[in-house]
Amino acid sequence: MKYPLAFERMVEALRKLPGVGTKSAERMAYQLLTYSPDDIAQFADAIVEAKQQLHPCEICGQWADQPTCEVCRDSARTSAIVCVVQSPKDAFALERARDYQGRYHVLHGVLSPMNGIGPEDLNLESLFTRIEREHIEEIIIATNPNVEGETTALYLAKRLSHYPVQVTRLAYGLPVGGNLDYADEFTLLKAIEGRRSVKL
Amino acid sequence: MKYPLAFERMVEALRKLPGVGTKSAERMAYQLLTYSPDDIAQFADAIVEAKQQLHPCEICGQWADQPTCEVCRDSARTSAIVCVVQSPKDAFALERARDYQGRYHVLHGVLSPMNGIGPEDLNLESLFTRIEREHIEEIIIATNPNVEGETTALYLAKRLSHYPVQVTRLAYGLPVGGNLDYADEFTLLKAIEGRRSVKL
Repeated sequence: MKYPLAFERMVEALRKLPGVGTKSAERMAYQLLTYSPDDIAQFADAIVEAKQQLHPCEICGQWADQPTCEVCRDSARTSAIVCVVQSPKDAFALERARDYQGRYHVLHGVLSPMNGIGPEDLNLESLFTRIEREHIEEIIIATNPNVEGETTALYLAKRLSHYPVQVTRLAYGLPVGGNLDYADEFTLLKAIEGRRSVKL
Repeated sequence: MKYPLAFERMVEALRKLPGVGTKSAERMAYQLLTYSPDDIAQFADAIVEAKQQLHPCEICGQWADQPTCEVCRDSARTSAIVCVVQSPKDAFALERARDYQGRYHVLHGVLSPMNGIGPEDLNLESLFTRIEREHIEEIIIATNPNVEGETTALYLAKRLSHYPVQVTRLAYGLPVGGNLDYADEFTLLKAIEGRRSVKL
């Protein structure tokens, strides 16, 4: 007994989503088949419409349903600080800290020679244009704390050294609420390196 | 900063899939936004078309792209044995054993008073019709080995006692390749109860 072709195609489409294997894709497919025709149309429309309506913000690259994104439109935020993140969701993550009042710049990727991703594949040139046009004082590099993120941060810092901006990187250290005992050696090393004097 | 509405709607649609939480739905949504418009259309079509083309087999209830499913159309398989499963994927799982040559009957659910699912919500009546029309000799009840599956098996066995068919249930016991040490007490109990004499 083989799956009907239409079923196979649906599973194949779902299996390409991140974190979805054949087994999960099959489970999703079985559930989708129990939807009413209206619900299925709604499901498909939600995805197709999102793709149609959303495009990168002209300034920072964040997904937006208008020419520019909410952050770039917000005049209450300072233009002096720009935080460079590798993906749109990282900007949303930083927003959760509710403290940062600057702008963002989304690279849409990191340097990865293994996967053939070079500087020309990232949303980089528009960052340099921004520095020339806007009065940016500080660029915070907030790529992920892993090999590819570090490489990208280093590359970016080098390129930015030609511009009159201060370049900073998010702090490494122990996660709040974490357990020293469970921290890996590199994190501990960075936590010791980055130690600060206690202010009383 | 809030997500654009179209993005929220896409995440909401994806989050309803089984095993998908907000975080995974967001990851999927971000990946879908990187698709080309063609790929997105293909993705949506695969799902919508599957829903349009697939419907329950007129005889057994399995998903099929023709009036009857592949198993019900296969004249090489015996009609004397029918294996009752709770979901279409269970029939495919049993097919992997490559031994069973009978037919299937898909209930599309199990009895679950807690969720308000009664006998009338299952694909049951057509099973009794099949018994009356076809020459079925044995019904193998292959619902899942859990409380709801057992309840359904018991209910089904009672209803089937009025018909001239032999009713069997899949064997309980230790899984092949498993470890006795790790088996739970109920499985061990069933394995002892169901012990067989060793044939030399």
